[in-house]
Amino acid sequence: MTPKLVIVGTVALDDVTTPFGSVSRALGGSAFYGAIAASYWTSVGVVAVVGTDYPEEGLALLASRKIDARGIERSSEKTFAWTGEYTYDLNTAITRETRLNCLLSFDPKVVEHYPRPETLFLANIDPEIQGRILDSLSARPALVALDTMNYWIESKKEALLSVLRRVDLLTINESEARMLTGEFNLVRAAAAIREMGPKVIVLKKGEHGALVFFEGGVFASPAMPLEVVKDPTGAGDSFAGGLLGYLTRHGRITPEFLKQAAIVGSAMASFCVSDFGTAGTKSLTTEQISRRIGEFGDLTGFPRIDAGERRL
Amino acid sequence: MTPKLVIVGTVALDDVTTPFGSVSRALGGSAFYGAIAASYWTSVGVVAVVGTDYPEEGLALLASRKIDARGIERSSEKTFAWTGEYTYDLNTAITRETRLNCLLSFDPKVVEHYPRPETLFLANIDPEIQGRILDSLSARPALVALDTMNYWIESKKEALLSVLRRVDLLTINESEARMLTGEFNLVRAAAAIREMGPKVIVLKKGEHGALVFFEGGVFASPAMPLEVVKDPTGAGDSFAGGLLGYLTRHGRITPEFLKQAAIVGSAMASFCVSDFGTAGTKSLTTEQISRRIGEFGDLTGFPRIDAGERRL
Repeated sequence: MTPKLVIVGTVALDDVTTPFGSVSRALGGSAFYGAIAASYWTSVGVVAVVGTDYPEEGLALLASRKIDARGIERSSEKTFAWTGEYTYDLNTAITRETRLNCLLSFDPKVVEHYPRPETLFLANIDPEIQGRILDSLSARPALVALDTMNYWIESKKEALLSVLRRVDLLTINESEARMLTGEFNLVRAAAAIREMGPKVIVLKKGEHGALVFFEGGVFASPAMPLEVVKDPTGAGDSFAGGLLGYLTRHGRITPEFLKQAAIVGSAMASFCVSDFGTAGTKSLTTEQISRRIGEFGDLTGFPRIDAGERRL
Repeated sequence: MTPKLVIVGTVALDDVTTPFGSVSRALGGSAFYGAIAASYWTSVGVVAVVGTDYPEEGLALLASRKIDARGIERSSEKTFAWTGEYTYDLNTAITRETRLNCLLSFDPKVVEHYPRPETLFLANIDPEIQGRILDSLSARPALVALDTMNYWIESKKEALLSVLRRVDLLTINESEARMLTGEFNLVRAAAAIREMGPKVIVLKKGEHGALVFFEGGVFASPAMPLEVVKDPTGAGDSFAGGLLGYLTRHGRITPEFLKQAAIVGSAMASFCVSDFGTAGTKSLTTEQISRRIGEFGDLTGFPRIDAGERRL
């Protein structure tokens, strides 16, 4: 069975310290977080690479979520490892160490494993590789989504602009959107990025939620205010996974589906940050997810307002 | 006719520079901005002080909005004057000069002018003065709201804590809430402030909107993403004015009315930032306001989401 959503990205082992604790060699990575969040909504395959030190537990977790891991290569080097810290400002990760290890020679093979994904998510990797993956496809997926970061905007802008012309949806954070366009105003930055190619811009704002810009509209998806936020690692990937999982499940990209998908993404991100690593997302029930989505309705819904004039 | 909502605060002349232009001696001040925004929703009186140099134009503008200005004293000194600047980060005002002038000897007289307001908004002034005003009232208003700032949290915390015990609703920004409570997490900070007295906490987040915490719930009111943001001066006051004007108009403080009121506040703030000074708020039509409120519905509303399980 070929999965509907294919995610190309990293599988990592993370050492993370926050004011609320720390974890060592936690299962992580953009594709890992994204796939777990998406797996509640559609069938998912992962294209990534792990090293000789990657624990069986990681693959077992993917299997428990019925995620197709045939696209995960095993390298003879060690697994990509990230060491990061968050202070009380949980919006900003401080990277202490990045050991790329097996990522350095990663040459993702998409068609070989998944010839015809309906949705392809190119998570944050070298834009030249993202471009080559698109070149390799015999049929264009119905939806191509892309994530990137400041590093590529600075170091490989031409390659990034080239791949952007070929994607439908971009996830990007506020400062990256400003850096990419030179526009401080986010509405204008989103409009400028839409001119570059992707017609849907998902602007990630961390604890302030996300803005989704599409033809003729914009949607504000808040972050759920939580009493306990332990570890923001993977929140953006979980958001993207939930959003793309939902869109893939329904196979349509209308404003209404985009709005629902953004709320689903916010819900998955809220589960992610509530605990370390994937502890908050790896074993959710439908009831838990439904309840959280209902809480988003309470958080943003308001009764009709009559603006009828005050008699002056 | 006694106004239903009385606002005690500043009337100022502002010199403001933003990347999009500048204004000199613009009509401003917390009570001024708040009263204009509230005047679309209920009857408003202002208690403030102006100096010998205050232009007739300011009082004429209040009159055009049918705002009761009998509570505005005329001092023999000059008007409070603020000089500020914003860079591209429109969230943060850089104060270049503050000339308190007539504010230094301001002794606000509320009962003398407005014996029985339904709602009393004590905008950002010395908490000792805020306390004395509450002492002077023979009858407690149905709703007492208060605003404050980092300066008072640092320099007059005891007086502030004392007045907080006597108010129903506090408007405060993120960093002030953290400073006041020593809690970084905003949900816990809001809970801690609710223990101090006010049962409704309106947490202002600038371009990220506001969170309203109340008994048993929280509401996220987004800021409208605007292509043109010229001058954020007065946005928080316009938000508070709209919110309190709406609550006063309906005379009830339920979760549903609070949610509507927060959206009304966000709408008034969105008009405020779209132009310099009060140019964006001083002459709105009911149709403009209705349309903007409708845009908030589009910005945050989403169709029901079925979280029914993916068949694994």
